[in-house]
Amino acid sequence: MTTQEILEFISEQKTAIIASVNDEGYPVMRAMLAPRKIDGKDLYFSTNTSSSKVKQYLDNPKACVYFYKRGRFKYQGAAIIGTMQVCQDQPTKDMIWRFGDTLFYKKGVTDPDYCVLKFTCQQAEYYCDFKVEKVKFD
Amino acid sequence: MTTQEILEFISEQKTAIIASVNDEGYPVMRAMLAPRKIDGKDLYFSTNTSSSKVKQYLDNPKACVYFYKRGRFKYQGAAIIGTMQVCQDQPTKDMIWRFGDTLFYKKGVTDPDYCVLKFTCQQAEYYCDFKVEKVKFD
Repeated sequence: MTTQEILEFISEQKTAIIASVNDEGYPVMRAMLAPRKIDGKDLYFSTNTSSSKVKQYLDNPKACVYFYKRGRFKYQGAAIIGTMQVCQDQPTKDMIWRFGDTLFYKKGVTDPDYCVLKFTCQQAEYYCDFKVEKVKFD
Repeated sequence: MTTQEILEFISEQKTAIIASVNDEGYPVMRAMLAPRKIDGKDLYFSTNTSSSKVKQYLDNPKACVYFYKRGRFKYQGAAIIGTMQVCQDQPTKDMIWRFGDTLFYKKGVTDPDYCVLKFTCQQAEYYCDFKVEKVKFD
């Protein structure tokens, strides 16, 4: 697997699981909708500024994202370690905003409760059935 | 949701994602087969003693496990925080061993590369579509 193939695999999945470390040092996982944008080794998610994950990533940007595809006879998964940056600047919020997002963020693209999570990939483990491959992002 | 309902939901899923914290402080996720046994608030998984997750849990038992069910119109997930104990004692290894496991552990039930991960649930977040419920295990 190359990093490009990992990113292609990711781009085909509809959900992601993201992990942070909470203030007691426990890993915490949550499901997310697929990244809004993949740009090089950066993945962009939209989320609520008031959510506990935003607080956790502001305190500690160390993160992991997981993507999987479960077929009838085959399981594929990619776990990527990296850093999660909380972006509250308007240009990034504008870039990620989509028509219909007012359903989640009532005040629109400038809603202070709307922010962007930018994950930068460092290294991945790709699982296919019972085999694992490690890949580093430059 | 009661803790009992969470445990029932878990028992119906075929895969789990487990998270540890590595020695650089990053959360790390991996897919696992469903727990071999659920006993009260303890979940038992079988694994290779030589795996990196065993090293990570011996160094730091703080853990999270995630179970999900993705239907066509509905997503359910349960993220549970707790501790992961690495069990290498023979009675626990005997209890979890199943016929056919020699496929993974060549030397059988006493194989030093076979061990048991015992996860004890502390608190859960149950997701159904975009709602979340928190549940504490006593």
